[in-house]
Amino acid sequence: MRLPLFPMREQKDAKKKLIEDLGEFALIDHLTQGFLKQNDSTYLGVGDDAALIDINPSEYLAFTTDHLVEGIHFDVTYVPLKHLGYKAVVVNLSDLYSMNAIPEQISVSLAISSKYTLEAIEAIYDGVYEACQRYGVDLIGGDTTSSQIGMMINVAAMGRVKKNQVTRRSGAKEHDLICVSGDLGAAYMGLQVLEREKAVFKDNPDIQPDLAGYEYILERQLKPEARKDLISWFSTENILPTSMIDISDGLASELLHLAKNSKVNCRVYEEKIPIDPQTVGAAETFQINQTTAALNGGEDYELLFTLDQKHFDKIRETEGIYIIGHVVDSTEGNYLITNSESAVPLKAQGWTAF
Amino acid sequence: MRLPLFPMREQKDAKKKLIEDLGEFALIDHLTQGFLKQNDSTYLGVGDDAALIDINPSEYLAFTTDHLVEGIHFDVTYVPLKHLGYKAVVVNLSDLYSMNAIPEQISVSLAISSKYTLEAIEAIYDGVYEACQRYGVDLIGGDTTSSQIGMMINVAAMGRVKKNQVTRRSGAKEHDLICVSGDLGAAYMGLQVLEREKAVFKDNPDIQPDLAGYEYILERQLKPEARKDLISWFSTENILPTSMIDISDGLASELLHLAKNSKVNCRVYEEKIPIDPQTVGAAETFQINQTTAALNGGEDYELLFTLDQKHFDKIRETEGIYIIGHVVDSTEGNYLITNSESAVPLKAQGWTAF
Repeated sequence: MRLPLFPMREQKDAKKKLIEDLGEFALIDHLTQGFLKQNDSTYLGVGDDAALIDINPSEYLAFTTDHLVEGIHFDVTYVPLKHLGYKAVVVNLSDLYSMNAIPEQISVSLAISSKYTLEAIEAIYDGVYEACQRYGVDLIGGDTTSSQIGMMINVAAMGRVKKNQVTRRSGAKEHDLICVSGDLGAAYMGLQVLEREKAVFKDNPDIQPDLAGYEYILERQLKPEARKDLISWFSTENILPTSMIDISDGLASELLHLAKNSKVNCRVYEEKIPIDPQTVGAAETFQINQTTAALNGGEDYELLFTLDQKHFDKIRETEGIYIIGHVVDSTEGNYLITNSESAVPLKAQGWTAF
Repeated sequence: MRLPLFPMREQKDAKKKLIEDLGEFALIDHLTQGFLKQNDSTYLGVGDDAALIDINPSEYLAFTTDHLVEGIHFDVTYVPLKHLGYKAVVVNLSDLYSMNAIPEQISVSLAISSKYTLEAIEAIYDGVYEACQRYGVDLIGGDTTSSQIGMMINVAAMGRVKKNQVTRRSGAKEHDLICVSGDLGAAYMGLQVLEREKAVFKDNPDIQPDLAGYEYILERQLKPEARKDLISWFSTENILPTSMIDISDGLASELLHLAKNSKVNCRVYEEKIPIDPQTVGAAETFQINQTTAALNGGEDYELLFTLDQKHFDKIRETEGIYIIGHVVDSTEGNYLITNSESAVPLKAQGWTAF
C-alpha cells in the first residue's frame, strides 16, 4: 500500500499550461482515451450530447449529465434560485432532445454551503419541480450534501429513443440543409445586461436595476427552454435530421462538432442567422458584434441540425425553423459567408470550462 | 418576469435550524414529497439505494448517483487522488449491488480548482479506470469543469437486474436471518488514524506518518471494495435475499432503514458483529468502543441483507458471511443485545450530510 500522507504535488508549469491549452473537449478526450468498452449494452459512450445504452430490441436509453458550479456557471447575485433549479434540469433535457430522445427521468445532486437556508434549497427544488412538470420527467434520485463554500448542482437525465430514430453529431451529408430552431445570441446578451447591473448594484445598492426592454434576452439567459416541441414536430412530420446537436457553447463551436463528427464541412450565411431585435439592440448598446454574439455566445439551447434537401419546401414554410447554410465536402473548409460576401473561417471561441 | 437582482434572503433561524434537525434523509423526503410520477417506465424513484427504470419485459435498469465534496467527504491532505477516483466509483457500484444489479456504465463529473495540475486530474482518472477494469463497467460520460475552490466528484452508475431478482430495503419478514458480508468499523478506525497523523504532520512536517500495523483499516478507508463477489455467489447458489442495503452510514442506520421500509424490527447481537483485530486494536488505542465504531462508523461498503431461515445451514458453512441477528415483529422494537445481555435500542448516530 502506498503511503497515504503525501505533500501536494508541485505545480509543473508545462502540465499546468496544458489544461488551459487543451480546453474542455480535448481534456475529456485525453482523460478517457484508454478506457475500453466492456459491455455490449454500451452502444455509445463519451463524445456526443448523450451516451446510448442498448436496453431492448427497439430502443436505446440516452443518458447525459451536467455540472453547474457557483462562480463558474452561475452567479447567485442575480440568478433567482428557482430559475437556477429550472435551468439545471433544462440544459440536460436539451442534450437528450438533441439525440431525438424523449426524457423520462432525472436525478439532482446538490452540494450547498451553510450560508443557504432551507428556503433557498426549497427554491431550487421548486424550479426542478416546475421543469419536471413542464417536460414530463420524473425525479428519481440524487442527494443534498453540504459544501464548505459555494454551491454545485449536478443533474443527470435519461430518456428513450427508437434505434432507427437516433440523431447524432455524425451523419450530416454533403448538400444537406443546416438549420437552427430559433434565434441565437440572446442568452449571451442577457448575461451582459445582468453583469452590468451587478456592477451598478455593487457600487450603489440603492439603485434599482434597469432591465426594461431586456425582458426577452434576460429570460433566455435565466430561464431557457429545451426544444421538446421540435422533437414532437419531427415525429409528427416523419422527418429525421441527418445529424443534430444542441447549442450550448455557441453556433460556431457546434457547427465544428457536427463537421468533425460527420467528416464534412459547413457553409453558413451571416444574413441567415436568426437574431432577435432585443439581442441586436443590446449588442449595439454593449458594442458587441451581433453575429459574434450568435456564433460564440452560447447557452441558447436551440437545436442545430442537418436535413436532406428533400425537406426544403417543408422547412421553408415552417415558422421558427431557419435554414442558415448547407453542408459541403470535407475539403472545402468551414466558413461563414458574411453580409459583405467575404468568407471567414469558423472558429470555436465559445465558452470553455477552463 | 421576476426582477432577477435581489438581495440574498435573510437567514431565518427557525428554517436554518430545520436543515440540521432534519438530517439528509428527511431533507430529501421533504424536498421531493410533491413530485408525482409521470412515466410508466419509472418503477422506483427516490428512497432506496438505487432507482429502478423499466427497460424491457424482464429487466430493470438500476440507477444511482453520489457526490463527493472536498472538505466534507474527503481530505486531500491524506487521500491519494488515485484512491479518491477509485472510491468515488466503488461507493456507487455498492449501491447497485445492494439492489442485486450488475453495474455496466458510469459517468464521472469533476469540478476542480486551478490549484490542481493535469497530473492530479490524471491520477483521479487512473483510479476511475482501475475501478472500471476491476468491476467491468464502462465510462460513458461526464465532464470536467473548474471550480473556484475545492474539488467535487459526482459519479452516476447504471446496471441491470432481472425483475424477479431485485433486492430492496423492503421485503424482510419476521424470523428472517440478518446477515453482513464482512467486518465492520474498520474504515472508521482507519479515518481516525489518518486524522491523527494529519495533526502530527501539521505540527511537524518532518515527522514521517506512523501507519505500521494499520494497513488493513487504512485500505478499508482509502480504497474500499464493493461486494461484486457476493452478488455472483447469490446467483450461483440461487439465493435471493428478502431485503438488502449497503453499509455506507453505519450498521445501526442501515438496520433502521431495512426495519422501517420492511415494516419489521431487528434484533442483533453484539457478539455476532464481525470486527477485525486491527479495528479492535485501533479502537483500544483511540479509546473508542469497538461496537460503536461498527454500529455508527460507516463507509464499510459491506452488504447487509436478510434471508429466509431455510438458508441457515448454507450460510453457516459459508466463510465471510455473518449472521448477526434476526427479524422480529414490528411491535418489538429495534435492539442490540449486548455481550452483557442487556437490550440497547438501535439509534442512527452515523454520519449525516449536515
